[in-house]
Amino acid sequence: MNQQPTSLPRRHLLAGSGAALAAVGLASFGRTAAAAGETAPVAVAGAAKPLPAYVGWKDPASLIVHSSTTIETKRSVFGTSVITPSEQLYIRNNLPAPDVSILGNRDAWEINIEGVKNPRKLTLGDLKRMGIETTAMVLQCSGNGRGYFPNKPSGTPWQVGAAGCVVWSGVPVRWVVDALGGVEAGMAYLTGTGGEKLPDGLDPKSVIVERSVPAAALADALLAWEMNGVPISLAHGGPLRLIVPGYTGVNNIKYVKRLAFTAQETDARIMSHGYRISPPGAKGDPSQPSVQEMTVKSWINGPGTDGAPLKAGDTQIHGVAFGGMNAVAKVEVSLDGGKTWQLARMVGPDLGRFAWRQFVFAARLPAGQFTLASRATDTAGNVQPEQRMENAGGYNNTSWADHAVKVSVA
Amino acid sequence: MNQQPTSLPRRHLLAGSGAALAAVGLASFGRTAAAAGETAPVAVAGAAKPLPAYVGWKDPASLIVHSSTTIETKRSVFGTSVITPSEQLYIRNNLPAPDVSILGNRDAWEINIEGVKNPRKLTLGDLKRMGIETTAMVLQCSGNGRGYFPNKPSGTPWQVGAAGCVVWSGVPVRWVVDALGGVEAGMAYLTGTGGEKLPDGLDPKSVIVERSVPAAALADALLAWEMNGVPISLAHGGPLRLIVPGYTGVNNIKYVKRLAFTAQETDARIMSHGYRISPPGAKGDPSQPSVQEMTVKSWINGPGTDGAPLKAGDTQIHGVAFGGMNAVAKVEVSLDGGKTWQLARMVGPDLGRFAWRQFVFAARLPAGQFTLASRATDTAGNVQPEQRMENAGGYNNTSWADHAVKVSVA
Repeated sequence: MNQQPTSLPRRHLLAGSGAALAAVGLASFGRTAAAAGETAPVAVAGAAKPLPAYVGWKDPASLIVHSSTTIETKRSVFGTSVITPSEQLYIRNNLPAPDVSILGNRDAWEINIEGVKNPRKLTLGDLKRMGIETTAMVLQCSGNGRGYFPNKPSGTPWQVGAAGCVVWSGVPVRWVVDALGGVEAGMAYLTGTGGEKLPDGLDPKSVIVERSVPAAALADALLAWEMNGVPISLAHGGPLRLIVPGYTGVNNIKYVKRLAFTAQETDARIMSHGYRISPPGAKGDPSQPSVQEMTVKSWINGPGTDGAPLKAGDTQIHGVAFGGMNAVAKVEVSLDGGKTWQLARMVGPDLGRFAWRQFVFAARLPAGQFTLASRATDTAGNVQPEQRMENAGGYNNTSWADHAVKVSVA
Repeated sequence: MNQQPTSLPRRHLLAGSGAALAAVGLASFGRTAAAAGETAPVAVAGAAKPLPAYVGWKDPASLIVHSSTTIETKRSVFGTSVITPSEQLYIRNNLPAPDVSILGNRDAWEINIEGVKNPRKLTLGDLKRMGIETTAMVLQCSGNGRGYFPNKPSGTPWQVGAAGCVVWSGVPVRWVVDALGGVEAGMAYLTGTGGEKLPDGLDPKSVIVERSVPAAALADALLAWEMNGVPISLAHGGPLRLIVPGYTGVNNIKYVKRLAFTAQETDARIMSHGYRISPPGAKGDPSQPSVQEMTVKSWINGPGTDGAPLKAGDTQIHGVAFGGMNAVAKVEVSLDGGKTWQLARMVGPDLGRFAWRQFVFAARLPAGQFTLASRATDTAGNVQPEQRMENAGGYNNTSWADHAVKVSVA
């Protein structure tokens, strides 16, 4: 065991009433945390747990089941068709999904819009009549890449697969706000509240999924009812999800039941103490940076990620790159672990600055050992760093060195 | 019965040995043809046939099963996320799919490349080492919209749902050709041959799926192994499919086993007599235009397509538009059956000239009857026509009038 104590919501939950956790099906949180500390990423990947029922429609062969609420896409299954198929998309739910009955009459789902001139309750049916926009976006768990932290932070040891590029449709938040008279003066934050059922016996603020992002994020935000062409599944936050392009997954509130412009960040524990960039060994607190905007990152998805032997000769190194808030300007590939770099070629359609781009680099590899790495640069000139930024929670790992792929060519 | 005699491959098959057809599972072809003649589109849509086993992974609630090889997406399920999910994508196979065992070792699939300086057999594994490109493309059956022809041509009475926008990954044909020394002199056509098992007892040329397109189509063509992010399913032509962007579905050869640059069009019946634009009442013959390049088209997918009552007030009229070989320049929407038109707004990412664009038009509809129509214009100035071009096979229906949606607002 080499766990660092943290104050993640999950850890907090574990400190709560065991009976209360079990009563709402949260026992799996405990298993996850235990696995994170006790099992190396490769071993976790090898464990073939069955898919839980609420994601029974997903493709088990494409996924690594860490727990019932943390499920990762295998690196080797990422294709080169830009969009991540829903049946391969990762799952990371902070609380168990609500009962599927909430999808019975999607258009009746209600959301309170607050902190605007004319606050009111709207149904999803109302929202659908207010406008439609479509955005392709990288959805990535803040902890994606945590599995490469050598000190094994608490939390799921994701490698690259807690991310995907998906398409959302919904109404732009700014149109809803405009229709309700605009944002009230002095509101610096956009706060979304999830509609998960909260476990009995715990302070709601300690478990509720409620996050704040800067109010300016409303410029790109959607209240979305569709993902990848179909009504949003329960697992991914249907019937209604707040989508904040460029921000890590946790800020994209599932089952969103309240959208509030607020003067302060929410004091929900998942905001105040969870998802903070804490120094190694420290606990999260509100003085530390929150995990919000994503930054430039890339990784190679093949070859060499499926365990199959690689034959000497021509190969096509391919992967994905994204800039978070900015578009990707270029991707370089290294065959020698970062000593030398060459420009990769972008392929496929450009789905906008919040989506990932695919890159391909044609290489002729002789027999031997190679460390394949990729390094992206965004349009603002930010370069993907060599090293991760150490932090207690294992967040925001964009290190190109951590994401390199060692291959044996015979 | 109001059927026009045609010489489609299917009709020809029906004239062949019934025993031979039954032996290879082609009996369903007969049922299809019968259904096409005997049943109005609406009635067909109401028949809830189960999905055949080879497409058992698709979403039955999204589909209209005309026959085991002709399955249509319901108009009302098309979302606004640009890409058509694979589980909703239509099926139209000219012959039953090969045995699923051909997917056992995808990389071992072989294709003969002919009519190049250095013809040779390549495996899919070889192709994957030659390069990767990704193209988003409208895949549309030539007969999409046949259901609106009042004279009920033989063939499946598709409405709008024999089409989708999907993403393909594979190697550009031009790169393969370059690697093999280039196209031989005098080769005017690119001819692809499908790997379906042919029924015994019939002249192979009478049933084989082999189509020719102008050799210039190689500029955009792919030999594709991936669709929508996963290896191509058996139903959609895996392990390897010839993709000719901008051309109707039949030209995108499934299970492609031969790619030949040829001086002449193939004399396979599906090319010589099938898929020809024949005058009403006439049979297909090689002197008539072949069904190849798509032209500008659009349709509305909602509201009013799901049978639900429409409430007076604001609504978002949405649909798709594509230009075939050209990008879409604009889409207009009419609320009065085409008397007056207003510009619609394009939404979502632009996936390139072969993909469709989504459009949205915000309307405030009072109680009453409305005929909602859309009309697209491509970047070359071609305007979607009001009327279909009458032809015996019911091909290439781009009529905006045929595709209009009548709605009752209460």
